[in-house]
Amino acid sequence: MDEKIYDLIIIGAGPAGLGASIYASRYKLDHLVIGSEVGGQVTEAWEIENYAGFEKISGRELMDRFRKQSESLGAEIKTGLVGKVEKTGDFFKVHTEDGKTFLSKSLILALGMKPRKLEIPGEDELVGKGVSFCATCDAMFFRGKDVVVIGGGDAAATAAIHLSEFANKVYMMFVSGGLILEPFCMEKIKENYKIEMIECSKITGILGQEKVNGISYDKNEEKKELSVQGVFIEIGSSPGVAIAYALGVITDDHDYIIVDQTQATNVENVYAAGDVTTGSNKFRQIITAVAEGAVASGSVYRKLKLNK
Amino acid sequence: MDEKIYDLIIIGAGPAGLGASIYASRYKLDHLVIGSEVGGQVTEAWEIENYAGFEKISGRELMDRFRKQSESLGAEIKTGLVGKVEKTGDFFKVHTEDGKTFLSKSLILALGMKPRKLEIPGEDELVGKGVSFCATCDAMFFRGKDVVVIGGGDAAATAAIHLSEFANKVYMMFVSGGLILEPFCMEKIKENYKIEMIECSKITGILGQEKVNGISYDKNEEKKELSVQGVFIEIGSSPGVAIAYALGVITDDHDYIIVDQTQATNVENVYAAGDVTTGSNKFRQIITAVAEGAVASGSVYRKLKLNK
Repeated sequence: MDEKIYDLIIIGAGPAGLGASIYASRYKLDHLVIGSEVGGQVTEAWEIENYAGFEKISGRELMDRFRKQSESLGAEIKTGLVGKVEKTGDFFKVHTEDGKTFLSKSLILALGMKPRKLEIPGEDELVGKGVSFCATCDAMFFRGKDVVVIGGGDAAATAAIHLSEFANKVYMMFVSGGLILEPFCMEKIKENYKIEMIECSKITGILGQEKVNGISYDKNEEKKELSVQGVFIEIGSSPGVAIAYALGVITDDHDYIIVDQTQATNVENVYAAGDVTTGSNKFRQIITAVAEGAVASGSVYRKLKLNK
Repeated sequence: MDEKIYDLIIIGAGPAGLGASIYASRYKLDHLVIGSEVGGQVTEAWEIENYAGFEKISGRELMDRFRKQSESLGAEIKTGLVGKVEKTGDFFKVHTEDGKTFLSKSLILALGMKPRKLEIPGEDELVGKGVSFCATCDAMFFRGKDVVVIGGGDAAATAAIHLSEFANKVYMMFVSGGLILEPFCMEKIKENYKIEMIECSKITGILGQEKVNGISYDKNEEKKELSVQGVFIEIGSSPGVAIAYALGVITDDHDYIIVDQTQATNVENVYAAGDVTTGSNKFRQIITAVAEGAVASGSVYRKLKLNK
């Protein structure tokens, strides 16, 4: 029995994957989108104000719109985890965890990112209720409030500075030995009267039922609590690149897939888009992810149909 | 009297300029948007299906949404033509044609594109008398008439399809070798009984005195004429870069502003975004223009506020 061969399989159904699908449909590429969750990480954002076209929209609603639009243009979307991807002859064979396989002439890896978690009580339960992994996305919702940024690196410092433009008070909490800031960031933090650094020995829990109301931590042997309405976790994030490595795709030192301006990776017919890549000057936003997806599909089209 | 100095002036109020403004507001950059028309060329598109978030929306409605969103985030938008931009000391001085000047620490050039001309007899003389560069704007004036669309790309095909809703007959005329259509557009053209393709070797003139009454062209060695009441010129557009040249900004051979992945040009504190640039693999779409605008504002922010 002949197995169907897609022009394109898009792995990931967040903004980059769905953005790629919209353009793949325009180009009449016979394609399949496979993602663990339609919408990806964005579905966690409770209010988005920076995606052009919508003054305010929840992540879930925006991603529903992307999905409906993709489907109305003809996308086939399959929800599920991809287990393994391998090259077999001229094609790529994508195995899903439910035991199915799909063949394709090309791939767009829109694998997204996963923020590193603290792995403490309250963290999962209070996401979207005061716990955020994205200061850029959510700072404006903490106007006049007290917040804590967890982390001692430049990402945490940048988040704290950004938050200080909205919040009443910003604590920057880091575990002893974990403060590693560029001098410039350090200066900016020091001269910012709204930001206060707290060194601790361990962060133990996020407090609150319906909403965050504090954070608990140990300082030396002492158990302490800090009253805040927002907790921004900025201890890094990591792209989900196991699939990419298995294909021989090259990443940078931080595991981001290196792409050129066509969104091509080093492996022929394998493209990548969105947060998982080094594209868009590493400015990882919904709008840039969708745009990268669009560019990637344009590149697949030119490669498969126009051979250029 | 001290003149106000903006952090950023964005020249151009199309998708790239407004996309830049949305992110500039988020970064609290004190900025001004100056554009000849809010929405730019997009306002001429009667239906958009490939901007993620909207299954179908008119260009004007989408651009209205962008404008409202930009303004609600704090943008100051000025409608007008920019006459000249010069470097004065550490700042840029932007002169508008109504005689005002504005000072800024940085610029984002979101200059967009201008429709390209055929440069044949009758073209300039008959603009507004049957010659049009905007099918969206003018299609309705050709109800029941015969028209020709000049061009072999997707813009020409889209114009032809739109015109077929009004006109009696639509010719789509292209020079040999110049037919380059997305499969989606090609299918739409083929299945439309009102549209007829004409391949020619050269288009030589637009005929008529007070009004267009035909077009002359060569087919192989033969001189031919076609009787039409409307001529729609859809042969692409070129970037409007006079302002950029005056600042010493470098472009490629086709006049597109060369940008790096931060959207920076070769001139310090001058960034560019959208159709006017070489960015996004030259894939000139609304989504890529907005994304480039966002990246450019991120870069301005890092440069001005974080010095990196």
